[in-house]
Amino acid sequence: MENGSVLVDLFVLFAAAKVLGEIFEHFRQPAVVGELLAGLVVGPHVLGLVGASGAEVLDVVAELGVVILLFTVGLETTVGDLRRVGRSAMSVGVLGVILPFGAGVALMFILGYDQADSLFVAAAIVATSVGVTARVLRDIGKVRTTTSRVVLGAAVVDDILAILVLAVVAGIVQGGLSTLSLVVLFVEVIGFLAVVVLAGPGLTRRLSRFVRIPGIPESPFLVAVLLTLGLAALSETIGLAAIIGAFLAGLVFEFRKEEVVSQVEPVYEFLVPFFFAITGSRLDPGVFGDPAILGLAAVVTVIAIVTKVGGGFLGALPLGRERALAVGVGMVPRGEVGLIVASLGLGLGLAPPLFGVVIAMTVVTTILTPPILGPLVRRAERSSEGRRGDEER
Amino acid sequence: MENGSVLVDLFVLFAAAKVLGEIFEHFRQPAVVGELLAGLVVGPHVLGLVGASGAEVLDVVAELGVVILLFTVGLETTVGDLRRVGRSAMSVGVLGVILPFGAGVALMFILGYDQADSLFVAAAIVATSVGVTARVLRDIGKVRTTTSRVVLGAAVVDDILAILVLAVVAGIVQGGLSTLSLVVLFVEVIGFLAVVVLAGPGLTRRLSRFVRIPGIPESPFLVAVLLTLGLAALSETIGLAAIIGAFLAGLVFEFRKEEVVSQVEPVYEFLVPFFFAITGSRLDPGVFGDPAILGLAAVVTVIAIVTKVGGGFLGALPLGRERALAVGVGMVPRGEVGLIVASLGLGLGLAPPLFGVVIAMTVVTTILTPPILGPLVRRAERSSEGRRGDEER
Repeated sequence: MENGSVLVDLFVLFAAAKVLGEIFEHFRQPAVVGELLAGLVVGPHVLGLVGASGAEVLDVVAELGVVILLFTVGLETTVGDLRRVGRSAMSVGVLGVILPFGAGVALMFILGYDQADSLFVAAAIVATSVGVTARVLRDIGKVRTTTSRVVLGAAVVDDILAILVLAVVAGIVQGGLSTLSLVVLFVEVIGFLAVVVLAGPGLTRRLSRFVRIPGIPESPFLVAVLLTLGLAALSETIGLAAIIGAFLAGLVFEFRKEEVVSQVEPVYEFLVPFFFAITGSRLDPGVFGDPAILGLAAVVTVIAIVTKVGGGFLGALPLGRERALAVGVGMVPRGEVGLIVASLGLGLGLAPPLFGVVIAMTVVTTILTPPILGPLVRRAERSSEGRRGDEER
Repeated sequence: MENGSVLVDLFVLFAAAKVLGEIFEHFRQPAVVGELLAGLVVGPHVLGLVGASGAEVLDVVAELGVVILLFTVGLETTVGDLRRVGRSAMSVGVLGVILPFGAGVALMFILGYDQADSLFVAAAIVATSVGVTARVLRDIGKVRTTTSRVVLGAAVVDDILAILVLAVVAGIVQGGLSTLSLVVLFVEVIGFLAVVVLAGPGLTRRLSRFVRIPGIPESPFLVAVLLTLGLAALSETIGLAAIIGAFLAGLVFEFRKEEVVSQVEPVYEFLVPFFFAITGSRLDPGVFGDPAILGLAAVVTVIAIVTKVGGGFLGALPLGRERALAVGVGMVPRGEVGLIVASLGLGLGLAPPLFGVVIAMTVVTTILTPPILGPLVRRAERSSEGRRGDEER
């Protein structure tokens, strides 16, 4: 009965995550940073309060957490949203992926890192964290502005591209991806995306009919769980990350969506903190004792910020400079996807100190953004309101 | 990355559990039976569709499921309820534990089974499943009748006693429990119960104050998760089953309870089916190929039914014969606790075929009860209404 200590581990992780999360929220910082630090502090490398139950066992809980997280993020977006924000979001998203990835690979190669290290670090600085961005915009009550829509739309484009980048990087590192297999992978990803987006709503409806047996008022959440686990498993089976499937499940889910949004909330609250705390517990802060690694973390973080602000700014320039700057800063926070990329990388040859570099980058970009983004969005929307008065509604 | 197949396993288990669960509900049978059978069918002994991810990994998910289940069951009861139903519930509960346990041990010893087998099978037929009973009573709209209150109160007494029995049995089998350690165990259990019941509500209030940092409307569900994981871990640490702590957490939880009841629902829906499906997947139906085991399953099931109806009837006789019979039948369904006892037993020397016997007993008592209980409760409450008109309100 190895389970003996699992519940103790889970309690310690959850309690620490909540305590530090609350402290961070109290100082108007994202709770996610507190949760990461909590895992780090109670984890095997610092206090050693958790870890007795074995990494594999905790990994499952982390995996459930991240699947629920990506489902929730997908749920906050619709295929329609993606189409509506259209060209600006697309430019911002694409530039915001190409610049960080290119700069990341270049930097790491110049510094003499090998292929796996370079590709994984570059892939990890690509993806904007939709969660942090959306949360800040919601906190300042500016979700329904042009700036916000472009940032949110671009973050989605950016997430999908980041996931493609991840698939490609993982493929290259694992199998020495040939041109043919690269093409197959692309076709697979695009095919999967297309099938899910086209067939998803129909599938949801069918599933919902199945569970709505006469006389039994069944919860739509059940349909959501089936769809999410099913697409996550399918996604993994065809060689993509499970989180792609989970995200797409959220994206296409339309059946009694409001109920599901409120029902997924407690599941999110219960399971998602484990992902961040368990992720944090994997970081050995000892790596920062090495000045070279500390320096690398600083350089990677600067590259991550500059390329993302730059990409966002250039992509959104047609909307005016102030908005473009707000959009660029809105794209800066990195979070779950970067950490997922790094976790995946750890299993595929990423040097452990570089995992620390990615966490440091995530923490710094996540902490820095909220206090800067709020005022920028307010100013951008106020001045363009004065000029055109077309954005809030 | 052993996780590769976890999500596939989880999806297959969940989907199968839901399909069979729905089919059972469609025929007005408890979904839990369908979930058990689903696990059995897709499990390694029949179709072999799951199990690739390793038993330990799935165990964690099952553990989370059962912790949430017992928390929810505890949540449906209050310390006040226990006091109110008082003497009748206590007699029903105590007799309903002593008779099945005594008869079970006697039967198994007579049939020549060893100590571990006899004690675990006897302990497994002790506990009434509050979930099935409560669900039937709710389905027929008779929760607020005397019969129902006695059954529910007795089921709680019975659950606590069953858990004590389990602790004693596990202690005896594991360590060759001495009189001294038996006394220590009893004191520990009673002390734990007393501390939780006395200090629990205060602790809940304190926790809720902690999480209600000004300006951040925090979910009471968070407090529930902290309390549940904390008491489950504590319970396990002092040598009791984690589920005792989870049950007590539900029992003493009073902070914004209605919200928590609705918030725990999706978590329950998501995680609890895994417990039953994973439990079902552990059964090797091959054991029933042996006529001796099949015969034993039949005898154990008859003993389980007769002793429980008898215990309940005797305990509730002061309420009149019809009510006493309804109470007795209401105590018949066995479920989660019996399965937990058997799972625990598997790790402590219970012969695997006897695990099958316990599952068979659970399935039969669970399937038989609902169609019989409904009419009996209706009749008992109708006739005593005619006589005294005091029960519905």
